Amino acid sequence: MIIDCHGHYTTAPKALEEYRRRQLADLNNPIKGSLPITDEEIRDSLEKAQLRIQRERGTDLTIFSPRAVGMGHHLGNETTSRHWAEHCNDLIYRVCTLYPGNFVGVCQLPQSPGVAPKNCIPELERCVQQLGFIGCNLNPDPSGGYWTGPPLTDRWWYPLYEKMVELEVPAMIHVSGSCNPNFHATGAHYINGDTTAFMQFLTSDLFKDFPTLKFIIPHGGGAVPYHWGRYRGIAQDMGRPPLGELLLENVFFDTCVYHRPGIELLLKVIPSDNILFASEMVGAVRGVDPETGHHYDDTRRYIDSIEWLSHGDREKIFWRNVGKVYARFVRDRPDLIARCGSSR
Amino acid sequence: MIIDCHGHYTTAPKALEEYRRRQLADLNNPIKGSLPITDEEIRDSLEKAQLRIQRERGTDLTIFSPRAVGMGHHLGNETTSRHWAEHCNDLIYRVCTLYPGNFVGVCQLPQSPGVAPKNCIPELERCVQQLGFIGCNLNPDPSGGYWTGPPLTDRWWYPLYEKMVELEVPAMIHVSGSCNPNFHATGAHYINGDTTAFMQFLTSDLFKDFPTLKFIIPHGGGAVPYHWGRYRGIAQDMGRPPLGELLLENVFFDTCVYHRPGIELLLKVIPSDNILFASEMVGAVRGVDPETGHHYDDTRRYIDSIEWLSHGDREKIFWRNVGKVYARFVRDRPDLIARCGSSR
Repeated sequence: MIIDCHGHYTTAPKALEEYRRRQLADLNNPIKGSLPITDEEIRDSLEKAQLRIQRERGTDLTIFSPRAVGMGHHLGNETTSRHWAEHCNDLIYRVCTLYPGNFVGVCQLPQSPGVAPKNCIPELERCVQQLGFIGCNLNPDPSGGYWTGPPLTDRWWYPLYEKMVELEVPAMIHVSGSCNPNFHATGAHYINGDTTAFMQFLTSDLFKDFPTLKFIIPHGGGAVPYHWGRYRGIAQDMGRPPLGELLLENVFFDTCVYHRPGIELLLKVIPSDNILFASEMVGAVRGVDPETGHHYDDTRRYIDSIEWLSHGDREKIFWRNVGKVYARFVRDRPDLIARCGSSR
Repeated sequence: MIIDCHGHYTTAPKALEEYRRRQLADLNNPIKGSLPITDEEIRDSLEKAQLRIQRERGTDLTIFSPRAVGMGHHLGNETTSRHWAEHCNDLIYRVCTLYPGNFVGVCQLPQSPGVAPKNCIPELERCVQQLGFIGCNLNPDPSGGYWTGPPLTDRWWYPLYEKMVELEVPAMIHVSGSCNPNFHATGAHYINGDTTAFMQFLTSDLFKDFPTLKFIIPHGGGAVPYHWGRYRGIAQDMGRPPLGELLLENVFFDTCVYHRPGIELLLKVIPSDNILFASEMVGAVRGVDPETGHHYDDTRRYIDSIEWLSHGDREKIFWRNVGKVYARFVRDRPDLIARCGSSR
């Protein structure tokens, strides 16, 4: 069993994009409107992309959420974000219902700059309790690249964390698009968001207040594993506890690093208990690496090629840690858990 | 000969900090004021710190500039920044005059949010032509963490680049302090600044306009080498030339990465022609790594321990590339060049 914990519905039928265009062109319209997409269109959009790639690469299940760059929390207002998140999440639900063995849902939150994160709670509850989702994506910068809101460790976020703890769902820290010309979205803003969130956690006592709260930092943890010595040293200079004690019960990294040396570094410096397999396939980098002849984002190949990785560590990364981070996966999906441990 | 291309005067005598405190407390005062620091105080501040460490670690020469976090371009106004930069640069000049065999100067620029970079030209000229400096530090975000100015590839910066090309001096891209509570300075803002600058270069034709312009991206290039596959892939998806062709004639990385696995990754993925030795000693991380018993920032040890690195590549990293990036070092300092090639 190989579970990819980081996939977005980047190939959704055109009607979704058209809805969003209409919505943004008419921001004062309070009507949510509908999204005319057929099951056939959903199947089409996945069969040729994510499902084909799952088969080709031998991965089994993708933890699936709406397109990250499309969340666009900086656009419109709270109502815009609510309607948009509901439609995007409903679509993920339909995907998971059509292919219950291939996708498990994670939701987009209806964040908006300056709006209290607690306002996201109704949509989080709906997605978890009614749609069977097992986590959420949390944007640390709803301003889209100007970072005008409070850090993730501010009490501003606490009501949302309380609900996450109550519902037993983790959040993947994931920025959306950038409206700041300084930041290319997938090349700078994404990676900076990851690095920034980690450093916010390092300097705070958030996990004393929420010992069971769990975050996944995607894109291999931004710059963090490459600078692991720097982070260990900064924590030490500040008189903070060692990183393991300070945050490794709560913070996890995915494997979206698109070359073998990067993956090898990640596996060397971060404990295998804190790494979850992911590819973000059909995502930020879609091409074939001429140096290898394989897709840059075929991260399973890099991991498979690390000969010193033990069988036990490999199992943790490929599926076991998912059970630790996503409590609801274990509790709510015995059908999927039954498949874990079977190798292919 | 080992040249450390990235050192800041972090141990300057107290009078410097007191000057700055007075200056910021009285921003409407147009008087520059003086800085009462004796040669003895300068010697004291270095003998116990940078000079001792050079001797202990067997490095010979440090390319030395004012404290980066102290530049504080977001504080005060254009006049504040000008007076402050002049004092800081004069102090570096005095260091280099007292210890001509140990330090070569690089200047702080009098940047200020919203003020045209071309206004930095007089101070750059003064430092290069009168004080013998060989480069400058360029802050890509004078707003201190809000990134409200244009990207480095905008024509806004071109007059400064024209002058850099004319004077044959490179810039190290280096942010200063952060006034944005989201960004810890050395843990997030520094690394994000590095990653952001690289991605700006990747998406622009800046080096078509300035084929001889040279930048050093410090802190091991931020997140870039760890995500080298991502960057190669993004460039390819965008139809850009391969990274080597696109920017490796112009962009260089230093070795301020504070653990062996990070350094090994850097040396593996970035051509040795593009790496310059650096430690940023007495900088962001000052402690001793309990895992090794040595200082985190003793980067020479990590490089020395990479047994597969060839003698030729080691020479490039330790000193040869300095001659390529800092043209004035070669032209203006025959005394130092004569020492190059002698090993210790």
